[in-house]
Amino acid sequence: MTDVTAGSGRHTPPAQPESLTPLLRDRESVMVYDRSHVLGPDALRAILEAARWSPSAGNSQPWGFIVGLRGDDTHAAMVDVLSSANQVWAPSASAIILTLHQVATDEDHELAYSDYAMFDLGQAVAHITVQARSMGLQVRQFGGFDHLAATERFAVPPHWAVTTGIALGLPAGPDDDAEMPEWVRTRARLPRSRLPLEAFVHSGKFGHPADFLTD
Amino acid sequence: MTDVTAGSGRHTPPAQPESLTPLLRDRESVMVYDRSHVLGPDALRAILEAARWSPSAGNSQPWGFIVGLRGDDTHAAMVDVLSSANQVWAPSASAIILTLHQVATDEDHELAYSDYAMFDLGQAVAHITVQARSMGLQVRQFGGFDHLAATERFAVPPHWAVTTGIALGLPAGPDDDAEMPEWVRTRARLPRSRLPLEAFVHSGKFGHPADFLTD
Repeated sequence: MTDVTAGSGRHTPPAQPESLTPLLRDRESVMVYDRSHVLGPDALRAILEAARWSPSAGNSQPWGFIVGLRGDDTHAAMVDVLSSANQVWAPSASAIILTLHQVATDEDHELAYSDYAMFDLGQAVAHITVQARSMGLQVRQFGGFDHLAATERFAVPPHWAVTTGIALGLPAGPDDDAEMPEWVRTRARLPRSRLPLEAFVHSGKFGHPADFLTD
Repeated sequence: MTDVTAGSGRHTPPAQPESLTPLLRDRESVMVYDRSHVLGPDALRAILEAARWSPSAGNSQPWGFIVGLRGDDTHAAMVDVLSSANQVWAPSASAIILTLHQVATDEDHELAYSDYAMFDLGQAVAHITVQARSMGLQVRQFGGFDHLAATERFAVPPHWAVTTGIALGLPAGPDDDAEMPEWVRTRARLPRSRLPLEAFVHSGKFGHPADFLTD
């Protein structure tokens, strides 16, 4: 049942089990943000320190982030390259961050390429999500933007690949809903679903559900 | 300066800034675990639920986990395929988990392949790390094992790729150090380092440090 009193920033009802730690349990891919919220330098630093201290293969740290803050030139350039659907909701967030991972050794051979670069970028983004959550913020990740245009616009060198987008901000209250088209409000409230543990947790052999799930 | 009173489960001194939320600030890639600690079914479920509720591209959930618990057959088979260096320390953890991501559409076309599968697996593993931390546990990830042997041993189908290993357990106290060779104790206490934010946070153009870092 949908809680119609919640802003469309929130999915309802919460689906995650109580056993999860609150920073994970209360994570949601929020689509509607408070347009009056401003992300200050200290908050931004804390969020990016979370990525910085993420683990990586051989400490390769194969990640990069281009940060646009609502109102600045970087943000405006990012909005330009978003898919038309993402242009509707993502600018309501306080920041849009484009993520990059290293795909080849650079010209000066200072940075070694790692096969785990995309995996490690994913970890760093998850750490950003958790840190943001600890500050009352939420994140929605997206892949819907013109990657080639972003690469050109931000002069990304060939040994780096623009990978995903992150919208980050304070979830909107019910009043902020009115500015969003109906399709966003509907989609933001869709119930969440996941495969059961038995589908992806194995023991003994792949496809054999772990014993502790069936005992 | 190294705190010699800490078990080699801990890196010292802590390098992460105070601005990080404790579940991230206190995360360490612990190498020495309490060999008497047993991970029960409820704890395992909570840890795997964290992965389950991780976000993924189009909710593709392209992750898999093979779970070995110290003392069971899956664990023994995993230890067999570890690199000789990882065989020294990893079995001290309560669990070893091999991670998988989907690399192709399966034969029945039930699962669509996602270009972000490795990224999303990284996120799911980070969520496991955070959940484990909330339960007083730590994690060390590794890539050093015979991926082909693991694929054969666990009958992993061709549309999935064995990706990384996770050792998960309760950090050892100082008494547990004695069982570990000197090189593990030394390595476990190496100071941690990271590139400065200015090296990987950009605005305007790639390579241009974000304005909020220089203001």
